[in-house]
Amino acid sequence: MISVVLLGAGNVATHLFKGFDKTSEVSVIQWYNRSIHAIKPYANSVDITDDLNDLKDADIYILAVSDDVISEVSKNLPFDDKLVVHTSGSVSVYDLDMKHKRGVLYPLQSFSKSAEMDFANVPICIETIDKKSYPLLKKIAVSLGSPTKRINSDQRRVLHLAAVFVNNFTNQLYRIGHEITESEGAEFDLLKPLILETAKKIQEMSPFKAQTGPAKRNDKKTIKKHLKQLENEQHKAIYELLTDSIKATHGRKKL
Amino acid sequence: MISVVLLGAGNVATHLFKGFDKTSEVSVIQWYNRSIHAIKPYANSVDITDDLNDLKDADIYILAVSDDVISEVSKNLPFDDKLVVHTSGSVSVYDLDMKHKRGVLYPLQSFSKSAEMDFANVPICIETIDKKSYPLLKKIAVSLGSPTKRINSDQRRVLHLAAVFVNNFTNQLYRIGHEITESEGAEFDLLKPLILETAKKIQEMSPFKAQTGPAKRNDKKTIKKHLKQLENEQHKAIYELLTDSIKATHGRKKL
Repeated sequence: MISVVLLGAGNVATHLFKGFDKTSEVSVIQWYNRSIHAIKPYANSVDITDDLNDLKDADIYILAVSDDVISEVSKNLPFDDKLVVHTSGSVSVYDLDMKHKRGVLYPLQSFSKSAEMDFANVPICIETIDKKSYPLLKKIAVSLGSPTKRINSDQRRVLHLAAVFVNNFTNQLYRIGHEITESEGAEFDLLKPLILETAKKIQEMSPFKAQTGPAKRNDKKTIKKHLKQLENEQHKAIYELLTDSIKATHGRKKL
Repeated sequence: MISVVLLGAGNVATHLFKGFDKTSEVSVIQWYNRSIHAIKPYANSVDITDDLNDLKDADIYILAVSDDVISEVSKNLPFDDKLVVHTSGSVSVYDLDMKHKRGVLYPLQSFSKSAEMDFANVPICIETIDKKSYPLLKKIAVSLGSPTKRINSDQRRVLHLAAVFVNNFTNQLYRIGHEITESEGAEFDLLKPLILETAKKIQEMSPFKAQTGPAKRNDKKTIKKHLKQLENEQHKAIYELLTDSIKATHGRKKL
């Protein structure tokens, strides 16, 4: 049985706790948070604390805390030479205090507090400084049912950046779709099957191959019509820039 | 039994043919295409022709031809006062020759030639000039198993425009994610569950509520890091513009 102490009470920490709770290979023996209030509801199923000096001895300490305090919390841990990992996509593994064995468990998914999380849909990217720590981290990721991938810092950095494009920016395109349709009293709901199909399509096909539409076809007439329709200047700028981007990808000339 | 003559041989026409073939309420009695070659494979299951003057008498004529030739084909139909509809998102219903009863059946989905199409995932937007034509169009859309929605021209126009944002532009963000990850030898595949989750999330939740990430949080440190990482000037411009768009939506100041 691998013993884990979990630190933090955000979405990632909460989903990790629930995930580990279902496995037989990993036991969360203690849950720390700066404010005990947030983890009080779990007091019946796990030892909780708000005092770093009370931390129990464990195989792994998982810092699922905000990026800004990873360095500080790792420094304040009252022990050394234990395996300490964080879960951030954008913080360097070297931000962890060097008195620890250091690593990263980066779950590449968007966590909402409410929704149940199936870890089969959460690839966990593993980074370690010393090779010896890798098998243990892999074991706990696998116990959750996650696909795992060993990566380096540069790869984690680009994955985190790419995640902003495919998740946050994509969601903003949905939002713009919402605004455009509502402006004429059309239902955004009519677009939902198309949104799902677009995401499903590239599960099997490269985004390059999956591209369709006026920009790809260089259909100037439709592009012109669309630009005329758009009243919001920012939406217009986004339309132009992404049309140019598609043209660049598919060897067409700029707008 | 409603009789249909289908015109055109692209993805929409082909999927409509296959869809109608499964219903008991609609019969495609003839399939026309300018070049007979494209529809030859179906010669055993339907009467095919490449001559507009050979067209049979039917309840509805569906012009699933390219936008550019809708007007011309409708003019060349050697009859009048029959129900003639096109399937385009961006062409006016008035582009159909006025000698016909005119309407639009706009299937709001991305059709690929290869994939099977489940019409339950294809909302069909119906537009007619005279009210009497509506029930028949609704009936054939329902026979396919599609959700249907009666809309006007302005609504069809904004739906078509919004579809470009949530389908073509979103797919281009996937492409950029692909380019960014591959630049460091990271696997784009790791992002696929996140892409699917992002699309699934807004099936239940508004894109406004679903937004997360550095732009929404106004996390200047991460945004600065990301901009520094991006080497492609176009990707950088897209990052800045979509970050500003998220900020505008969520009441934050510009970059």
